[in-house]
Amino acid sequence: MSFMEKLNQAWTKNNSLVCVGLDPDLNKLPESVRNEPKPIFAFNKAIIDATHDLVCCYKPQNAYYVGFGAEDELAMTIDYVNKTYPEVPVILDSKRGDIGSTAELYAREAFVRYQADAITVNPYMGTDNLKPFLDYADKGVVILCRTSNPSSAELQELVSGDKQIYQHVAEYAQTRWNYNRNVLLVIGATFPEELGNIRKQCPSLPFLVPGVGAQGGDVEKVLENGQTPDGKGLIINSSRGIIYASKGADFAAAARQATIELRDLINKYRRGA
Amino acid sequence: MSFMEKLNQAWTKNNSLVCVGLDPDLNKLPESVRNEPKPIFAFNKAIIDATHDLVCCYKPQNAYYVGFGAEDELAMTIDYVNKTYPEVPVILDSKRGDIGSTAELYAREAFVRYQADAITVNPYMGTDNLKPFLDYADKGVVILCRTSNPSSAELQELVSGDKQIYQHVAEYAQTRWNYNRNVLLVIGATFPEELGNIRKQCPSLPFLVPGVGAQGGDVEKVLENGQTPDGKGLIINSSRGIIYASKGADFAAAARQATIELRDLINKYRRGA
Repeated sequence: MSFMEKLNQAWTKNNSLVCVGLDPDLNKLPESVRNEPKPIFAFNKAIIDATHDLVCCYKPQNAYYVGFGAEDELAMTIDYVNKTYPEVPVILDSKRGDIGSTAELYAREAFVRYQADAITVNPYMGTDNLKPFLDYADKGVVILCRTSNPSSAELQELVSGDKQIYQHVAEYAQTRWNYNRNVLLVIGATFPEELGNIRKQCPSLPFLVPGVGAQGGDVEKVLENGQTPDGKGLIINSSRGIIYASKGADFAAAARQATIELRDLINKYRRGA
Repeated sequence: MSFMEKLNQAWTKNNSLVCVGLDPDLNKLPESVRNEPKPIFAFNKAIIDATHDLVCCYKPQNAYYVGFGAEDELAMTIDYVNKTYPEVPVILDSKRGDIGSTAELYAREAFVRYQADAITVNPYMGTDNLKPFLDYADKGVVILCRTSNPSSAELQELVSGDKQIYQHVAEYAQTRWNYNRNVLLVIGATFPEELGNIRKQCPSLPFLVPGVGAQGGDVEKVLENGQTPDGKGLIINSSRGIIYASKGADFAAAARQATIELRDLINKYRRGA
């Protein structure tokens, strides 16, 4: 099943737009898992078991694995989701940006080595960077457009012609890069107006939205500006707000509770939820 | 010693602006190393031993290691250069682009886990992405500016105000990001005119220049437009043209020969070489 089909099914079956960001900082794990032989995986597994029926996606952030030399635990995490909860797609968040044979190797890493369903990529180098990923028609390619951080304005808000740079990215996504119908865009929850602009440009592309919770994005505004007419179209990521909801031995139960709360808050503003 | 000091010394001592790109495709290695227990490292070690006195840098491309699950051989390669030829700096080419604690982990990966002297990064997310790297004052931060690939024009050539996007990046690099004097820029050899523009904007920043050889960049034009008044300021990368100069058992000797030829061709056009 393609990423887009899986995503659509998970949105519907779990009645949820929540994506849990699996960003397990080895130095911040609860004591109850810290002495496991594979502490990162043990932590992730508990979070996944506690939330799989409440989410539309998982998103492991590559840095939290490679920063600690824990590539094996990244592989174990994705494999665990694929085998245990195959209805939930996994987006590998590694924001790749390179060209030609190099990009082909990164695509191979994400889709063959790790068996992820989708990957995040950076548009700065243009189509040459994106094509090796886009050509995996069954996989999702999530392109950075308007990122949630304050300094994203430095380049992304520069105006060229009648559009800001992030709007040029959205236009390329809509008109040039979506030839396999597998493109998504990253739009930060911290910029709800921009989210609305891009929704107008790209009526049906799914958006991966980081920045609710710790970064201060407003759920109501995100839904108002970003959802599609059928109350979908958004993958709303929360990492720290869910995985560190408790730092004690009850971390998984607390993660479940935090996921339920975010799902329900989102659904309050969803059409037809 | 800082990256910039090491680079300056290597430029002078080896009288060379050549950087060898260590991009060893596991499927293309010569038969003579393919059966080694660590074939990628064995290949790199032979190339490094054959070229260390002819180069100003090595640049391992991250994708060629992570694409094959060979992080250990990337670590072994950098460690080998650091211990055996400590006068030659290593740039880890992983084009990172992420923010906050995530970028901190990528900086840790490059500078602590792998002990690289410098890293390549992507400017699309702005200062938030770059700061965690820039704050390692002794390390080099090589920021993508005008990349060598054809589709780089899609975003990088868009005009905003009186400048193209890559010129905005160069301006930020010059005026905002170089507070620790550890910034470099990536400018493709395939765009010599742009190289000249950016040299005017950034008189003393070192440029990492890919795209000579296989991609068709012209060495004379690169030197004419990019060198600093003292005949330095450039790190001219060649990967395939050197590491695959021969596909037989004589690959290391052939790599040495190809490196000499590129060094000498460059020096023909260098001031004071």
